[in-house]
Amino acid sequence: MPAPIEFHFDFSSPYGYFAATRIDALASRFGRSVTWKPILLGVVFKTTGGAPLPALPLKGDYAKKDIPRCARFMGIPFRFPSPFPVGTVGPVRAFYWAEGNQSAMAILLAQALFKAYFVDNLNISDNETVVRVAASVGLDADAVRAGMNDAAARDRTRAETELAVSKGVCGSPYFIVDGEPFWGHDRLDQVERWLDKGPY
Amino acid sequence: MPAPIEFHFDFSSPYGYFAATRIDALASRFGRSVTWKPILLGVVFKTTGGAPLPALPLKGDYAKKDIPRCARFMGIPFRFPSPFPVGTVGPVRAFYWAEGNQSAMAILLAQALFKAYFVDNLNISDNETVVRVAASVGLDADAVRAGMNDAAARDRTRAETELAVSKGVCGSPYFIVDGEPFWGHDRLDQVERWLDKGPY
Repeated sequence: MPAPIEFHFDFSSPYGYFAATRIDALASRFGRSVTWKPILLGVVFKTTGGAPLPALPLKGDYAKKDIPRCARFMGIPFRFPSPFPVGTVGPVRAFYWAEGNQSAMAILLAQALFKAYFVDNLNISDNETVVRVAASVGLDADAVRAGMNDAAARDRTRAETELAVSKGVCGSPYFIVDGEPFWGHDRLDQVERWLDKGPY
Repeated sequence: MPAPIEFHFDFSSPYGYFAATRIDALASRFGRSVTWKPILLGVVFKTTGGAPLPALPLKGDYAKKDIPRCARFMGIPFRFPSPFPVGTVGPVRAFYWAEGNQSAMAILLAQALFKAYFVDNLNISDNETVVRVAASVGLDADAVRAGMNDAAARDRTRAETELAVSKGVCGSPYFIVDGEPFWGHDRLDQVERWLDKGPY
């Protein structure tokens, strides 16, 4: 049984959202599973010297055109959220709390959080919004609220982000397949080739 | 007759090279022409705050894997050049000098310069190497040598780079199709959709 595909992403990354709508179906076509790994891109930027897209001269303006166009190209529901980007400590903690109980529920929560931010324009940097999104997929509101504030979820969030940086994760989405790194939703075609025919 | 596709690139950009092997055939399938616009990415970086890939923490290591893998994925002959990247003032001046006489020859020269650097590992930052490459496609060595040092080619190089920045060009390759910007060889699928079905 081959190792799961590692799918690293930030909940505030539109390209991460695009990848999140595709990666499980892609992997399953080749009998592979996916381990979702939300991280905090702001921490990654401390190593890479990166910055949020809107802050980048020229690239920020380009991203404003590219992001919604990519969504239309891929046929993915999308509305540019405001504010953008937002801090996602709450969503990441909620994810790892949920994963501690059941990984399928954590993925369901992640998909709902992406939709809340990038389709419904809900500000997922607000913890109570995260709780409401979690409740909408069937998680217990009080348990989520407590779990997000638990030391375990906080420590896991930091540890997963540090582990990702140590593996070379430099953006979102960032896949690792059999040790091979693929950065960007626009590398899903290369991931597919890898899964289909092996290393190239 | 629709306007030509603008194809901005740096001669030291592997992703620019990949795009250069595809863009003319793609455009011609839809009855479109391409205007090649070599620029100096180092000047663009002064506006974007960017830096050459090898200098970027994590992203530099990633690029070392991604670049040759993209070449294999696309079936493009490629050898990682050393040194990388190199300054390309000479190639850009030679291009605009050649274009002043005949644009088809300038494109032939550009393709030969890309191949010289990314397949044959010739250092195209050396002006005499540029002259030899130009001679190999039928240009007169002495005329190229003089043309590269001509004030007109120097001024055109600076003007085209400044014009590109003023249009938002933030990397290589960077296409502008009917006013719409597409950055990266991995947007060629979106360029194709645009040419095929129009704005989306």
